[in-house]
Amino acid sequence: MKARKWILMQQFDGFPKLTDLKLVEEDLPSLKDDEILIEALFLSLDPYMRPFSKALPDGSTMIGTQVAKVVESKNSDFPVGTMVIADCGWRDRSVLSPKTTKIQKMWDTGKHSPSLSLGLVGMPGQSAYVGLLTICNPQPGETIFVNSSAGIVGAIVGQIGKIKGCRVIGCAGTVEKCKEVKEQYGFDYVFNYKTCNLNEALRTAAPNGIDCYFDNVGGQMSVEVIFNHLNQKGRIACCGNLSAYNAKEQQTGPLFFFEFVRKELKMEGFMIYSYEEKLPAASAQLLKWHDEGKLKINEVVVDGFENMPQAFIDFLRGSYNGKVVIKA
Amino acid sequence: MKARKWILMQQFDGFPKLTDLKLVEEDLPSLKDDEILIEALFLSLDPYMRPFSKALPDGSTMIGTQVAKVVESKNSDFPVGTMVIADCGWRDRSVLSPKTTKIQKMWDTGKHSPSLSLGLVGMPGQSAYVGLLTICNPQPGETIFVNSSAGIVGAIVGQIGKIKGCRVIGCAGTVEKCKEVKEQYGFDYVFNYKTCNLNEALRTAAPNGIDCYFDNVGGQMSVEVIFNHLNQKGRIACCGNLSAYNAKEQQTGPLFFFEFVRKELKMEGFMIYSYEEKLPAASAQLLKWHDEGKLKINEVVVDGFENMPQAFIDFLRGSYNGKVVIKA
Repeated sequence: MKARKWILMQQFDGFPKLTDLKLVEEDLPSLKDDEILIEALFLSLDPYMRPFSKALPDGSTMIGTQVAKVVESKNSDFPVGTMVIADCGWRDRSVLSPKTTKIQKMWDTGKHSPSLSLGLVGMPGQSAYVGLLTICNPQPGETIFVNSSAGIVGAIVGQIGKIKGCRVIGCAGTVEKCKEVKEQYGFDYVFNYKTCNLNEALRTAAPNGIDCYFDNVGGQMSVEVIFNHLNQKGRIACCGNLSAYNAKEQQTGPLFFFEFVRKELKMEGFMIYSYEEKLPAASAQLLKWHDEGKLKINEVVVDGFENMPQAFIDFLRGSYNGKVVIKA
Repeated sequence: MKARKWILMQQFDGFPKLTDLKLVEEDLPSLKDDEILIEALFLSLDPYMRPFSKALPDGSTMIGTQVAKVVESKNSDFPVGTMVIADCGWRDRSVLSPKTTKIQKMWDTGKHSPSLSLGLVGMPGQSAYVGLLTICNPQPGETIFVNSSAGIVGAIVGQIGKIKGCRVIGCAGTVEKCKEVKEQYGFDYVFNYKTCNLNEALRTAAPNGIDCYFDNVGGQMSVEVIFNHLNQKGRIACCGNLSAYNAKEQQTGPLFFFEFVRKELKMEGFMIYSYEEKLPAASAQLLKWHDEGKLKINEVVVDGFENMPQAFIDFLRGSYNGKVVIKA
């Protein structure tokens, strides 16, 4: 059985290039005990792939998650036909053992496409849910600011914030995205961070300050929020750091330790793998809100495994709105 | 009745100077309903006075806390003879109403001097207790790093850490202080931050990394700890920011938002006034440990209200070990 995979030829240096990745074909081995053969249906594109690829030796399969179907099995926990999520990287077919690769049953996507288990009810939705509700713990009437608001995580954070009775402020990098965030996702205020003065925009958006800051971006935007906009006992959930992923140099800025003392701020970075006990309920709630029309998402499906590197580059450039998946 | 007070003539600019403060005598008014007249026994010197004085208009009484005795009273909650802690600033006698000034009954100091209610069982001890146990939540076997370890807060943090079964690392700025931290307070490892390479010292002190960082200092030391020494899920309690209090320029350094995501770090600034429900038990436990010989402190008593500015300057220069109080 043939399989294809994308390997990282060398570490990305600054913005990823097509030549950093190479499509390779290989023969798959026959199954040993406990192993399964899976075929990818959808592969996920996520920002974390950029920074976490730094840990890969040159020539490794590029990291990533997919929804796949078990097509052969020597593992009774994963019989043929089982839909799984597998962290096996950019591969169209894979022979895997659950002992060495993280594989789990697909999250329930109800009447919707299984691709939603990479978005709404998968890692991005769960990150929004856990990060906002557990780390920021917003109270009704409080103000939430979430950046990268047209992305899947930001869009879900903002809509959960509205469900919880908060004022929700967002930002995005194009007029079209801002329109979507305001009109489709129902944020109270959205600004284009590329064309506005950040301090003025946040003063206008949050005249009484920000209580919860869900941060997908980091960098100078976060510095500005910490120094000038967070209220006493403000909470920051650090989910991502988009502003730095393709930077060649370490970002610098003013140190804000005293702001933490003075304003009793809390900042916490998180990954959902540390909240496994909360994830089933999170996914079920997200699906329920979606089916009730309270939680909208935008999914972009790019066709063809062979187009994955270009889609990744476009994704990092901000060319898509919402969740991007590759249809294998 | 005459009273003396120290007023802040103008904002401190960089390191405080004697001429920034002026001793003023005034006539106290007679008591109105609800008011009390108190006489200071001991006045506290604390690092927070430096940054928080920035909020004072020129000519204000310098901020600070004292242990005092009620000598006249028109308030049945505070009869004559009551020992109180009052946040009424650098004054030897004061007419106060509990409605406008924070006044509370003195914390129990057992068989010891009432001055301990400004140190061991007062704000510094409570800060150490709450910050370490509530925010850092150290587990037996974990490694704690606390800086400014010869100061009252650092010394107590380290000793609580030892009581809780942790490895405790400290630092101080003189050979003598380091000796005291190691020998009197029983830290596992202490280094002189003024003469060592910080990264190497922490590598040697904490070869398995740091789990809990109780930060009294901020600045480059904290940056170093965050980037190179904190373990996955490390916790930072921001108690103070000594490195910046007398700096004329905003400190800058590398931004560390991605470290928070990658290592799932938590950082929280705190002030004990937000933990009032925990303070009585904290003070009682601290006193008990002290009486059992498990928690040692060093108290420096400087004689004379008139010497308070010089003592404050010496204190900020690091000339004292442990808690400094002024005997009025």
